[in-house]
Amino acid sequence: MDATIRVELGENSYDIAIAKGKLAQIGQHLSRLKLGQKILIISNPEIFGHYGDTVIGSLHTAGFEVCTHLIPAGEQYKNLASIQKIYDTALDHRIERSSTMLALGGGVIGDMTGFAAASWLRGINFVQVPTSLLAMVDASVGGKTGVNHPQGKNLIGAFYQPKFVMIDPTVLATLPVREFRAGMAEVIKYGVIWDHNLFEQLEAADHLDSYDTMNGDLLDLILERSCQAKADVVSQDERESGIRAILNYGHTLGHAVESLTNYKQFVHGEGVAIGMVLAGAIAESMSLWTSAEGDRQAELIQKVGLPTECPPELQTRDILRTLQSDKKVRAGKVRFILPTKIGEVMITDQVSAELITDVLAAAAA
Amino acid sequence: MDATIRVELGENSYDIAIAKGKLAQIGQHLSRLKLGQKILIISNPEIFGHYGDTVIGSLHTAGFEVCTHLIPAGEQYKNLASIQKIYDTALDHRIERSSTMLALGGGVIGDMTGFAAASWLRGINFVQVPTSLLAMVDASVGGKTGVNHPQGKNLIGAFYQPKFVMIDPTVLATLPVREFRAGMAEVIKYGVIWDHNLFEQLEAADHLDSYDTMNGDLLDLILERSCQAKADVVSQDERESGIRAILNYGHTLGHAVESLTNYKQFVHGEGVAIGMVLAGAIAESMSLWTSAEGDRQAELIQKVGLPTECPPELQTRDILRTLQSDKKVRAGKVRFILPTKIGEVMITDQVSAELITDVLAAAAA
Repeated sequence: MDATIRVELGENSYDIAIAKGKLAQIGQHLSRLKLGQKILIISNPEIFGHYGDTVIGSLHTAGFEVCTHLIPAGEQYKNLASIQKIYDTALDHRIERSSTMLALGGGVIGDMTGFAAASWLRGINFVQVPTSLLAMVDASVGGKTGVNHPQGKNLIGAFYQPKFVMIDPTVLATLPVREFRAGMAEVIKYGVIWDHNLFEQLEAADHLDSYDTMNGDLLDLILERSCQAKADVVSQDERESGIRAILNYGHTLGHAVESLTNYKQFVHGEGVAIGMVLAGAIAESMSLWTSAEGDRQAELIQKVGLPTECPPELQTRDILRTLQSDKKVRAGKVRFILPTKIGEVMITDQVSAELITDVLAAAAA
Repeated sequence: MDATIRVELGENSYDIAIAKGKLAQIGQHLSRLKLGQKILIISNPEIFGHYGDTVIGSLHTAGFEVCTHLIPAGEQYKNLASIQKIYDTALDHRIERSSTMLALGGGVIGDMTGFAAASWLRGINFVQVPTSLLAMVDASVGGKTGVNHPQGKNLIGAFYQPKFVMIDPTVLATLPVREFRAGMAEVIKYGVIWDHNLFEQLEAADHLDSYDTMNGDLLDLILERSCQAKADVVSQDERESGIRAILNYGHTLGHAVESLTNYKQFVHGEGVAIGMVLAGAIAESMSLWTSAEGDRQAELIQKVGLPTECPPELQTRDILRTLQSDKKVRAGKVRFILPTKIGEVMITDQVSAELITDVLAAAAA
């Protein structure tokens, strides 16, 4: 069943449409918005090969003028040099303030397109058509855009909201299974931090580890509840001055694990999965939640086919050092998001280096 | 007399303090705001040589931790490569989300610092200490930040408001006289588009062409009325979807003249001066205002020592082509801001290429 989720952000509010098999109606959706004539589609060659014709055909039918900019797939292209190439294309095609940049792709394409749209002519229209599960449930909601600095992920960017997000779950048929599972890490995250009911439905379900085996209605529910959870949080705190930080659950340690393995061993969702298990262990050692709750979380993560263990070759001192350079550091203190029960978390900067060391040692044992 | 101007922009509102001889109190001002511990000063070597010690001393006294990043002076450094170097410094000094970037300099430093602050960690605190007249009356108000693309000025950037602006007019003592006059172009602009009273006071005054000769009270009045005019306009339309466009009076043709002379023959204010005269001539040929009003404008521009004539070697077809690539183009139509009387302008895209050609030919005759 189709659903529309409204992300309430004052004058930056926008709709997310979840519409199964309706990618070919993107043009109709966009013609209802006040957008200019020109749309620059930004995508990568593989995804564009799958869905480019459908999107362009629909946009042409709706009367838009369309041009395209492709970026090779991969996190290694998520940098300022790629953004500069988008600017060059925007100039060549005379993209104006009333024009639109449309991201057709996963999180990397969405983050880069958003930052390019935020910074071209000081901000033009931005539309998201996410094609990965991770992008659907996370990157497409809430306006975080940006690129990596050679020394760290997402250090450069902007908060910039799209005008519209179109999610067609059937495009997940072409998503590699490893990427599908990575997206499920964020879904589980919403269960732990916000929606215990979602968590329980996932616990009760089978075949969570691939698009091909997952029940279609369950997938719809996952998309809707995840987007709703993120929209709820982001609406309260667009620029992450408070509660929005809970969305970083699992990400602080996850980023450290990804970074220390040079972003080669784990994709983002896998880092988050390991980070959630470690955050759960920290919470347990601080008596914030029980080992039973930690076990439930770990079991669900395993059921979707995600890793739960930190690579033993990582040194604790390297992890601690990497945490210190995280964006979320305030006055030198690392802030952690720790679960207090399934569906609820707290924010704290009272986690000592000693406690982290002990938890990592226990996890490695 | 000191004055404070409030720029009303909802949760992005901020104060501009005009405080003669009080640069050394910048630390006290900032300690009243909710800023983090660290401040990264961004400046150029010459300005930093004049005022760096004063600012750093004041910030240290107020308890801030200070680091510095210098950029060579000149528009040719206003590019993404310079922004990347700011990011590198920000990383080296562990600039956090609660930290502040402080622009100590003219418009180039302010625009770049603002864009770096807007895009580092998706946005950190930004404070402006403008040291040129142009930056005081224009660049420091309203949140336009950015850098140039090799093909055009200010094509890359963001709307990003400072937390505070501190204007100490006495720093203008070290400003080259040509730059002082360039700033006066924007002051005259406010007279023409918004504040006929300011225009008339300038007409009645003498010694407008340098800081050394200008009456101190008149300078205070100029700063206050100009900042107030811009604050009035920007408060109504932060992101330039409507009335804010009137601030581009003189800029559309001015940018074309600057661009076609490769930004070597004219500084920005000189381009604006020429652009205002041409816009006045267009208005006159469309019977929007009188030749008497056009003459008053030209005389005032001459009185501050600014050029009024387009270089005769520029080809009309090149000017028309350059206008087409301007940021302000909408659906291929160039929007002009045209005066209807001293103190009032209108926005129109109904200026034909033929009319522009005729006006340029008459101006060259």
